[in-house]
Amino acid sequence: MKAPSSVAELPVASWARGLGPSAIQDMLQKITRPGVYSLALGLPAAELFPTEGMAEAAARVLAEQGQALQYSATLEPLREQVVALMAKRGVRCSPAQVFLTTGAQQGMNLLARLLLEPGRSVLLEDRVYSGFQQVLAPYDVRRVPVRRDARTGLDLDGMEALLAAGERPALFYTMSDGHNPLGTSLAREARERLAGLAREYRMPVIEDDAYGFLHYEEGGALAPVKAWEPEWVFYVGSFSKILAPALRVGWVVVPEWMVFRLATVKEASDIDTTTFPQRMVLAFLQSGRLEGHLETLRREYRLRRDTLLKALETQLPAGATWTTPTSGMFVWVELPEGMDSTVLLSRALETQQVAYLPGQAFAVSGGRSASHGLRLNFSACAPERITEAVRRLGEVLRAG
Amino acid sequence: MKAPSSVAELPVASWARGLGPSAIQDMLQKITRPGVYSLALGLPAAELFPTEGMAEAAARVLAEQGQALQYSATLEPLREQVVALMAKRGVRCSPAQVFLTTGAQQGMNLLARLLLEPGRSVLLEDRVYSGFQQVLAPYDVRRVPVRRDARTGLDLDGMEALLAAGERPALFYTMSDGHNPLGTSLAREARERLAGLAREYRMPVIEDDAYGFLHYEEGGALAPVKAWEPEWVFYVGSFSKILAPALRVGWVVVPEWMVFRLATVKEASDIDTTTFPQRMVLAFLQSGRLEGHLETLRREYRLRRDTLLKALETQLPAGATWTTPTSGMFVWVELPEGMDSTVLLSRALETQQVAYLPGQAFAVSGGRSASHGLRLNFSACAPERITEAVRRLGEVLRAG
Repeated sequence: MKAPSSVAELPVASWARGLGPSAIQDMLQKITRPGVYSLALGLPAAELFPTEGMAEAAARVLAEQGQALQYSATLEPLREQVVALMAKRGVRCSPAQVFLTTGAQQGMNLLARLLLEPGRSVLLEDRVYSGFQQVLAPYDVRRVPVRRDARTGLDLDGMEALLAAGERPALFYTMSDGHNPLGTSLAREARERLAGLAREYRMPVIEDDAYGFLHYEEGGALAPVKAWEPEWVFYVGSFSKILAPALRVGWVVVPEWMVFRLATVKEASDIDTTTFPQRMVLAFLQSGRLEGHLETLRREYRLRRDTLLKALETQLPAGATWTTPTSGMFVWVELPEGMDSTVLLSRALETQQVAYLPGQAFAVSGGRSASHGLRLNFSACAPERITEAVRRLGEVLRAG
Repeated sequence: MKAPSSVAELPVASWARGLGPSAIQDMLQKITRPGVYSLALGLPAAELFPTEGMAEAAARVLAEQGQALQYSATLEPLREQVVALMAKRGVRCSPAQVFLTTGAQQGMNLLARLLLEPGRSVLLEDRVYSGFQQVLAPYDVRRVPVRRDARTGLDLDGMEALLAAGERPALFYTMSDGHNPLGTSLAREARERLAGLAREYRMPVIEDDAYGFLHYEEGGALAPVKAWEPEWVFYVGSFSKILAPALRVGWVVVPEWMVFRLATVKEASDIDTTTFPQRMVLAFLQSGRLEGHLETLRREYRLRRDTLLKALETQLPAGATWTTPTSGMFVWVELPEGMDSTVLLSRALETQQVAYLPGQAFAVSGGRSASHGLRLNFSACAPERITEAVRRLGEVLRAG
């Protein structure tokens, strides 16, 4: 092999060669410029963070726990708290099935490292969280899109046909509730049927439930698919959206025998989870404040969702459609035929200082185009700012 | 492919199939049993953590920074603080060359993901930090040992011969100061020569400097190899050993063009670093307390090192040798011919309730045996406990 002549020609792994500047860092810079009305990112509302409760938690942990800053084995009481939380979500599990992670993203990453091998295939919804596509980037795997449509839902007929024809995916990745980017949730029958397919075809399912606790309808949300199929569905949860992202505390619920394998994979990646923030989360949960905090979030985000939906009614051009989320942080808009949301984004930023994420960010390469779609977030901005953002967005879109 | 009949037969990635229960979790359990005198793990002294300073930092951050719990772009002021810290270590760099990570382990992991491809080779010292071998586990790479001996140091003649014969490693991993497990540091001439080899043969070097700030001799430590070769040496640093492990804040110093690639790799692994602990570290550094804290650590660890060395003089069997570390947390002992430290560990735990890490934990498979070696930590225990631990160890070892 020829040696590189300078370090800038260093041979990096082939999958990494085409990587440009970090998409998130770049996007953050553009849309966090002062004055931009941003409906782009999936940020929780910073003004609703339980800052006081967290400050008390941090102070208590440091005052009372001599080992709070030391390397630590898994915090068993936090696993027990997660079990209680899962029960509220309709999932029965034991502490031994709970594995704590650095946010949901790490949970998915560790599962991918454990399950993927070169040459395998992965089933992906054709509108999919871009962060999961990033998880797949280093792996030489075939991506097989399954239709997930804003109106018609998840194409389980298509999935069954693939499986019946012999496709044996290493995993299928999905969000049952508050889907990112669609904002939709799976119907009960779809959950049951997906659980059945996972069982029948021995297909591992990664169920990303980052938004499942943020539900806005009377009667709450349906239980995740995990509740219908405890063995083949690997559940990924997170405190990022319901407490605070900067603590990066998440968890997975998997069969007990997988936990030690995940622990070994995780040690190689960052030794152990950042246990100080875990201790803060634990102290906060033990203070009994989570349920009240969740009620605040649901009330406030419901108001913001309704504000967004109402503004869309008056501002969007004829022919545009959008979803009505019952959970999560996003509304998905589909523009009339021929409109391209990526092209329009530059114009939106330049002429109206308003930002969203274009649909193509969530498309699977080789799959159906999403260029006429766009994702709007309703959690990050106060209602009056949402109204103004959509007014500006309407100006851009109606001008086409 | 045959489908597994239950999830317990799920085909996991081939490298992960042989994994037993997590080594660290298992070891933690055994040696943290009440009553065990442990010189095994590389734990900093919990009683020396700057708990009060950290509590103040946490309170200040939460009171003053409205975005402290939010997703966040890289904390630029922390990169600047790292630049100042690197200058004290004799390395000149700019904030744009600093990339913040979840501890040193993640820094190594991200570099490995960027640099490694199937079929490449990796040069490893034949006594090597086991965590780096874990980093390599998922990669189909050839491990080429280079002799690093407790007495004779790093075999640069051997390395040069390999390189001259055409070996083109994807990377060489080393610790220049307070080597884990040997406790030794590279001589100045070795640093210069290694820098020269890296430059001449375009060989990426990962320099793990987790212990470089913990030095115990008049005049401090030599600058890391990075100072001699700023381009081909990738420096990995960490606050885990000098502030607190549970915060998991580390950094790498790399050429500027590599930073955006690392950011993209990192996003896939855990979105962003746990920024709340980063903000705590930043506030602590800004309070100006680090230098005083480092002086405390150096004074106290020097005392513990001297206590350990003195106890070894009187307790170890004839023919045993050991290193005299000028940095770090470890002493490496070599037992007389024929003694096996793995076998003796069970006896040590059973009969004397004393623990260490056996040399084989640090050997490279296919390389020189380390079965007559053992690693002793001197940072975690108070001096009187070290003396008693070595007395117990002596009982076991003298009985052979």
